[in-house]
Amino acid sequence: MTEEAEQARDESRHDDEAYQLPPRTVTAILYAVDTGDRDRLEELMAPLHAADIADLLEQMNTHDRAELIRLHDRDFDGEILSELDETLREEVIAMLHPAVLAEAVRDLESDDVVDLVEDLEEPQQEAILDALEDADRVAVERALAYPENSAGRLMQREVVMAPEDWTVGQAIDFLRAADDLPEQFYHVVLVDPRMHPVGNVTLGRLMSHRREVPLSELTEDVFEVIPVTRDEEDVAYAFNQYHLISAPVVDDDGRLVGVITIDDAMAVLDDEHEEDILRMAGVSDESSLSDTIFAAARGRATWLSVNLLTAILAAFVINLFSEEIEAMVALAVLMPIVASMGGNAGTQTMTVTVRALATRDLTAQNALRVMRREISVGAVNGVLFGVLIALVAGFWFGVPMLAAVICVAMMLTQVTAALGGFAIPMLLDRAGIDPALASGPFVTSVTDVVGFFTFLGLAGWVLL
Amino acid sequence: MTEEAEQARDESRHDDEAYQLPPRTVTAILYAVDTGDRDRLEELMAPLHAADIADLLEQMNTHDRAELIRLHDRDFDGEILSELDETLREEVIAMLHPAVLAEAVRDLESDDVVDLVEDLEEPQQEAILDALEDADRVAVERALAYPENSAGRLMQREVVMAPEDWTVGQAIDFLRAADDLPEQFYHVVLVDPRMHPVGNVTLGRLMSHRREVPLSELTEDVFEVIPVTRDEEDVAYAFNQYHLISAPVVDDDGRLVGVITIDDAMAVLDDEHEEDILRMAGVSDESSLSDTIFAAARGRATWLSVNLLTAILAAFVINLFSEEIEAMVALAVLMPIVASMGGNAGTQTMTVTVRALATRDLTAQNALRVMRREISVGAVNGVLFGVLIALVAGFWFGVPMLAAVICVAMMLTQVTAALGGFAIPMLLDRAGIDPALASGPFVTSVTDVVGFFTFLGLAGWVLL
Repeated sequence: MTEEAEQARDESRHDDEAYQLPPRTVTAILYAVDTGDRDRLEELMAPLHAADIADLLEQMNTHDRAELIRLHDRDFDGEILSELDETLREEVIAMLHPAVLAEAVRDLESDDVVDLVEDLEEPQQEAILDALEDADRVAVERALAYPENSAGRLMQREVVMAPEDWTVGQAIDFLRAADDLPEQFYHVVLVDPRMHPVGNVTLGRLMSHRREVPLSELTEDVFEVIPVTRDEEDVAYAFNQYHLISAPVVDDDGRLVGVITIDDAMAVLDDEHEEDILRMAGVSDESSLSDTIFAAARGRATWLSVNLLTAILAAFVINLFSEEIEAMVALAVLMPIVASMGGNAGTQTMTVTVRALATRDLTAQNALRVMRREISVGAVNGVLFGVLIALVAGFWFGVPMLAAVICVAMMLTQVTAALGGFAIPMLLDRAGIDPALASGPFVTSVTDVVGFFTFLGLAGWVLL
Repeated sequence: MTEEAEQARDESRHDDEAYQLPPRTVTAILYAVDTGDRDRLEELMAPLHAADIADLLEQMNTHDRAELIRLHDRDFDGEILSELDETLREEVIAMLHPAVLAEAVRDLESDDVVDLVEDLEEPQQEAILDALEDADRVAVERALAYPENSAGRLMQREVVMAPEDWTVGQAIDFLRAADDLPEQFYHVVLVDPRMHPVGNVTLGRLMSHRREVPLSELTEDVFEVIPVTRDEEDVAYAFNQYHLISAPVVDDDGRLVGVITIDDAMAVLDDEHEEDILRMAGVSDESSLSDTIFAAARGRATWLSVNLLTAILAAFVINLFSEEIEAMVALAVLMPIVASMGGNAGTQTMTVTVRALATRDLTAQNALRVMRREISVGAVNGVLFGVLIALVAGFWFGVPMLAAVICVAMMLTQVTAALGGFAIPMLLDRAGIDPALASGPFVTSVTDVVGFFTFLGLAGWVLL
């Protein structure tokens, strides 16, 4: 077995470490930084991909990061800035010598520069724009004129196009004569005389057909044209739904102004997922592992404050029944079970609903049916866990009526949790708010209040 | 302004409805199904993409779905099956006439057939394999021999390759003479005489260079070779991290056996997101909106059972302090606040940790620093919300020592929540278990127990 094969086999066994920088490399780099050994550092960093260097910078502490950048300054690659987490970009850009920064930025494609500068403060943005050549600067400034998170910010302006009446031969001759083709392109976009895109021809088809075949006979079946103001989240959805590789972008008059490729759409999909998962957990979606302690604490405090208010509301509900609790402490012992099970079921339904909205599986057509199903699921599990907890409570405290009360309270809370977990994200979505903001705090506060109220209320009514 | 432009503008304003089937179309299709109007149905369905038809089937009720399939049977496209949610595939396949099924499947690429059959029961799998031509059948069976969720299942076996010593001219002549090129390909893979892949040349570069240029001068800088047994999640990570468009797949001996393209990697990334988000909420990751009520209830009951056990554990803790509660009911009123805030903070830390593990931002190098940071964040928010709740409790019940007790309990619980939210997913990851399974139930039960114990324990010790 060859060496590569052994390596391949070894890697496949250790999937956890696949595509992680080897710890030995990281240790060696940190040692080179510590000892200020610039040559050794260059030697270690040269084979690394810009994305991996960016990850490494994110994982270092502030002091080591500054040292590494000081030593690595000469060869700093603009792509590292592109790959770097937004929260660290300003810090790293401020560390770079202006001449190095200018050099680094000039090598980037215009869509990467847009991504890089759009969140920077004015002075840093200016410094980078000034470093660009005039044509690139104009391209970047035009892109920045489009709304944030729109297709216009995401697209590249360099498009390979051909008139719709050309043949394979004409297109091939044109491509072979062109001297400024984009780094990456996968289609020739056919346009009509008004510059409206009418079809995509893959390079593969172009290469495998005879010169006299008209391009219009080779266009792909699936062809999506993206308005320049469309939200990037919708763009990512379209790429994933229709298996697009690249798609033309048009302005308000339907004229071709750029092209979006699937690698950019994939990065958006990943970002949107990060945003959803953090929002649902009540964490600021701009937080990152390299935040300072106070920045991170602030990013969590917002939802903790909401949760504090709703928890106090739940405490008020409990306080209404303080006499009942005084008369029977078992109520205080059992009430968190009802609330906790409700919170869990509510979170489950909420997550399914938020996800189904994101994937467009939940629409006006099936909303009612899905709601009925969720409520039925709540009822089924309500009966199941109601009976289970009744048995536990009955044996524990030996009061049959207490068992009956907790059984009914569990059923009611499970059904309410399903209703709340479905309705809260749906209403937020209808109101134009991201349903992922219907995170834990909202739903669990509803289920807490309902759980405490039904259990203690029923107990007060029946038992005392 | 042209009609298309108006449409484009209109769409960009209504981002919520972008890429949703227009409700009017859905209504018209349902009406055609109801009235058994086969011609009208064909007319309405013809312009739809297979992925949209699959979504439509998922959103219909069982009866309408069966009717639509009965009417649409003649023209049933195999891609609809590919796009359909796994939970519905068996149902729909069972509805199709065997001849229609055979026809539908024969049009699919072999990697799509693999994706289609891998989760089917034996008899349905056999029926589909039998419908394939011999060569395709062998290809699919070979792919099925690779582990589930591996690169071998994901790849297509049709690869466009060239010897590493060829020139641009030789490659172009070869491509133009070939009559069985894959539908979609973006690179020519260069191989050495032992069939080991050594580089990728994009079609764009091939077309824009002179015939005598050696291919080895045109290879891309970033080149990742994927072992056939590598987990598809790692494959998706590599595509996203290194902006790959296609990557060669090699067997244990390092020989080229297939190629994976970015559209497949993007679909995996999306699936993994879905799995993570559902697991963290304690929902079975195989659930879908078209599950029956009982299937859906079962998919949630597992984690509800775990939660029931941990909630009972928390109730035992409360029961230890029943005398204290009897003496001071305010304790029962306030204790859920401490637990709820802890659950929230724990979920926040857990989500950040699970996500950082998935993106490889959390490694052995920075784990200690991240843990210290999370605990510090817990301490900062613990002090903040401890003081806040102390003020509320102090004014509410007028017992200064009670305020002091809840303040300290809040601080301790916030710090423990941070520790638990970090450590539980980390330990699961080290043990080779998906950290997303450290979902709500786990972390919130830790914080519930700690919250109740510190608050009631301190109260019993100090107040009574």
